[in-house]
Amino acid sequence: MNSDPIPFPREYAIPEDFHQNIRTRFLNFFRYTVGDKARNSLIMLMGAVKMNKHDEDQQYRVEQESNFHYLFGVDFLNCYGIIDVDNGKSIVFVPQYDSNYKMWNVVLNNDEIKQKFKLDEVLYNDDIESWLSNRKPSLIYYFYGIDDYSHHSLPIPDQPFLQNYNSDYDELYYILTESRVRKTPQEQDIMRFICKISSEAHELVIKNIRKGNKEYQMEALYQYHTFINHGCRFTPYECICASGTNGSVLHYEENSKTIQEKELILNDMGGKFYGYCSDITVTFPSDGKFTQKQAIIYNAVLDTQRQVHNSLKVGVNWGDMQLLAERTITKHLFNAGLIKGSMEDLIKNSICRLFFTHGLGHMLGLRTHDVGGYNKGTPPRLPELSQLQFRRDLDVGMVFTNEPGIYFIDFILQGAYKDPNKMKYLNKERIEEFMHVGGVRLEDDILLTANGPEILNDVPRTIKQVEACWRGEDWRKIND
Amino acid sequence: MNSDPIPFPREYAIPEDFHQNIRTRFLNFFRYTVGDKARNSLIMLMGAVKMNKHDEDQQYRVEQESNFHYLFGVDFLNCYGIIDVDNGKSIVFVPQYDSNYKMWNVVLNNDEIKQKFKLDEVLYNDDIESWLSNRKPSLIYYFYGIDDYSHHSLPIPDQPFLQNYNSDYDELYYILTESRVRKTPQEQDIMRFICKISSEAHELVIKNIRKGNKEYQMEALYQYHTFINHGCRFTPYECICASGTNGSVLHYEENSKTIQEKELILNDMGGKFYGYCSDITVTFPSDGKFTQKQAIIYNAVLDTQRQVHNSLKVGVNWGDMQLLAERTITKHLFNAGLIKGSMEDLIKNSICRLFFTHGLGHMLGLRTHDVGGYNKGTPPRLPELSQLQFRRDLDVGMVFTNEPGIYFIDFILQGAYKDPNKMKYLNKERIEEFMHVGGVRLEDDILLTANGPEILNDVPRTIKQVEACWRGEDWRKIND
Repeated sequence: MNSDPIPFPREYAIPEDFHQNIRTRFLNFFRYTVGDKARNSLIMLMGAVKMNKHDEDQQYRVEQESNFHYLFGVDFLNCYGIIDVDNGKSIVFVPQYDSNYKMWNVVLNNDEIKQKFKLDEVLYNDDIESWLSNRKPSLIYYFYGIDDYSHHSLPIPDQPFLQNYNSDYDELYYILTESRVRKTPQEQDIMRFICKISSEAHELVIKNIRKGNKEYQMEALYQYHTFINHGCRFTPYECICASGTNGSVLHYEENSKTIQEKELILNDMGGKFYGYCSDITVTFPSDGKFTQKQAIIYNAVLDTQRQVHNSLKVGVNWGDMQLLAERTITKHLFNAGLIKGSMEDLIKNSICRLFFTHGLGHMLGLRTHDVGGYNKGTPPRLPELSQLQFRRDLDVGMVFTNEPGIYFIDFILQGAYKDPNKMKYLNKERIEEFMHVGGVRLEDDILLTANGPEILNDVPRTIKQVEACWRGEDWRKIND
Repeated sequence: MNSDPIPFPREYAIPEDFHQNIRTRFLNFFRYTVGDKARNSLIMLMGAVKMNKHDEDQQYRVEQESNFHYLFGVDFLNCYGIIDVDNGKSIVFVPQYDSNYKMWNVVLNNDEIKQKFKLDEVLYNDDIESWLSNRKPSLIYYFYGIDDYSHHSLPIPDQPFLQNYNSDYDELYYILTESRVRKTPQEQDIMRFICKISSEAHELVIKNIRKGNKEYQMEALYQYHTFINHGCRFTPYECICASGTNGSVLHYEENSKTIQEKELILNDMGGKFYGYCSDITVTFPSDGKFTQKQAIIYNAVLDTQRQVHNSLKVGVNWGDMQLLAERTITKHLFNAGLIKGSMEDLIKNSICRLFFTHGLGHMLGLRTHDVGGYNKGTPPRLPELSQLQFRRDLDVGMVFTNEPGIYFIDFILQGAYKDPNKMKYLNKERIEEFMHVGGVRLEDDILLTANGPEILNDVPRTIKQVEACWRGEDWRKIND
């Protein structure tokens, strides 16, 4: 293998005015929202900091924090960024390194940094205090808020001299987050690119992996394709390469099992380019031919994904899409003889959630689980829909995943068998026959436009397409 | 590319008694060193903990801390490990997860963990307090010490109930570190394996990379080879793929430049298998043919590496090897007309350190810069040899790197030109003619045996071998 020269890389050229455009758009929104209070104020962010590996003299390869990247594009660590709200100027403060550090690492001078990242000013971290005392802002806005998913917050600058200035910890989080929810046309183009090359990598894996291979070999091939051809060093999340019943562990990341014959393989892998993420899941049979039971579950998930897709448009509420998905899955599970009872009872008792245990999809952007799901001013999380990642009305420029799934999770079903209120809806014997299926998830990345949904990925979806792809045939010619 | 099926992985089978053997050997050493004080005592270590990515609901893929891995082999995070000094039993405490966690992640039960890692007992973290109050140790030894390289220390367990027991923070660090310095035969075999497959990956890169490629494509191909064929998901350190003058930045990790013709490429890349590291550097010309000036520098470094190699044996002091390397490099720089003056003056003024700016080599094992360099009871770091990573006498079972280098570092040379005490030894005009060479480093991984040094890597070294390898020929047939 690999006895041919490496092809030249095909990178995507980020427009020079990319971050300037983002800052301008964000600042207009910020000034409009905050009003007079924002006059003579500054916005101050702290970038990602270095993280040591244990007690070693090595650091993790830390990616820039996504808000800092969004506004400034600077990929160095231990920096601060300021936006002057009045004039929109961007000032980034960077660490100053000694000559020993320069011997070991690439260090640009401040002019080079200013030039490279199209900033208005670049100074050293030690200059922040004097810069502020010259600038005399009436108020400094900091980014502080609890993330929907992790319930964590980012650190905020805490230098003692900052206490000399009025501070606001409320406004920025909501406004910056909301700005990120709707992607600019330039952001959309990057996301099209990363989804396209991630799809190519998925296709390559489907074509080349066989029983006897290890799951992690799919991860290796996938990452290799996007890295060597397009420079994608980072992945948005750990690759999930699950064969057989491993598919029933939603975020299975071990990828350590040997692939057997007649197994379904669930590959949930994404790429990352210039910080922007794809998040694509395919499911295919290890030997290229779905069994009857695998096909029943696969088609149920595919139909659900399509029903949702066909309902997507501006103004539709995502909570309603979750309910549509649940209804569709319930119907399919019933038709397959896996669950029993009246449709009304099955829905009322959320029986399908024993099999479809996660939310229908999440927003996507500079993070896999992108920000803004339950931002201030949007419909809050409901206890009865706690697994759903957002309940907003869909809007133009939003990018999100459409990822229904059906899983046979042993410990969940064992628990349900013991609960009479659930057991009465379950055909245990029939379910047991399907346990080997593991899980099926199909995940599309959707950009909502004024004309409707655009699927950014390009992977085989129907059973005929998937089987043709496995055989190395041109699956795009197959329409059914 | 990659239209062939993926080959089946070739993994190395870790012996079942691997960690048991290590614990037995370590404990004998511990009991012998500590003596009576160790009776009825415990050794307690804390494993690596999860690390969140910024404020996201994602964690870094954290590797187990190396001492914890060494003694227990358990790769889960947020664990504690105890060794009972009296009977040698191993007890590992693991986090207990709820059912929501189990839905998303693989969770083994404690019996499965005990079985998988051949431990004597596996309990939950919440059990530590009661376990200790039953066991009633007279003393608990903790791992506390400042790392030579990073000057960091590892966190130590700090549960309040541990205050009920006598504690010792001194002995364990020194003894465990010393144990790691000499590798067991089973450890040596793993290191042979990782060095061998890392060498294959280096060879693949030399054969396939050409001008017009980006530096990071070498990183991608290297990692792919070791990952897809042998399951090496982690690398011991960030790949250094430096072309042209980037070779003069010792730990250049950007790998973002396009490779040009007539450039030297310096690739410092290692692999990691079951925690054990290789650390191998090759230097080769981008178009397969060394220029005259590149060859002068390359041969100077190669001769230095060989002079050192031929002097390696049990009892030799590594500080003396550093001085041997410096003398040899000085001689070559003089012969090349780059420096001038008497040999005595050149040595006395350490002129070669303007070009050979780092230490000759470091110990290698479960870390790239492995532990024990300046352990208690070994020769201390000298101010005049501050760049050297250890000054010990070499002993059987030690694994270390032999990595001389010559670099043309612009800012260092510019500084030297302005210093009359250095400038008088430098032929500035001649040096300027060599600046484009960037840097040459040749790094071998050496296991010292009773019979002498064993080179664990297998990469082309002479100019003829390197050029033949680039052309895809069988370089192993070439002896000069």
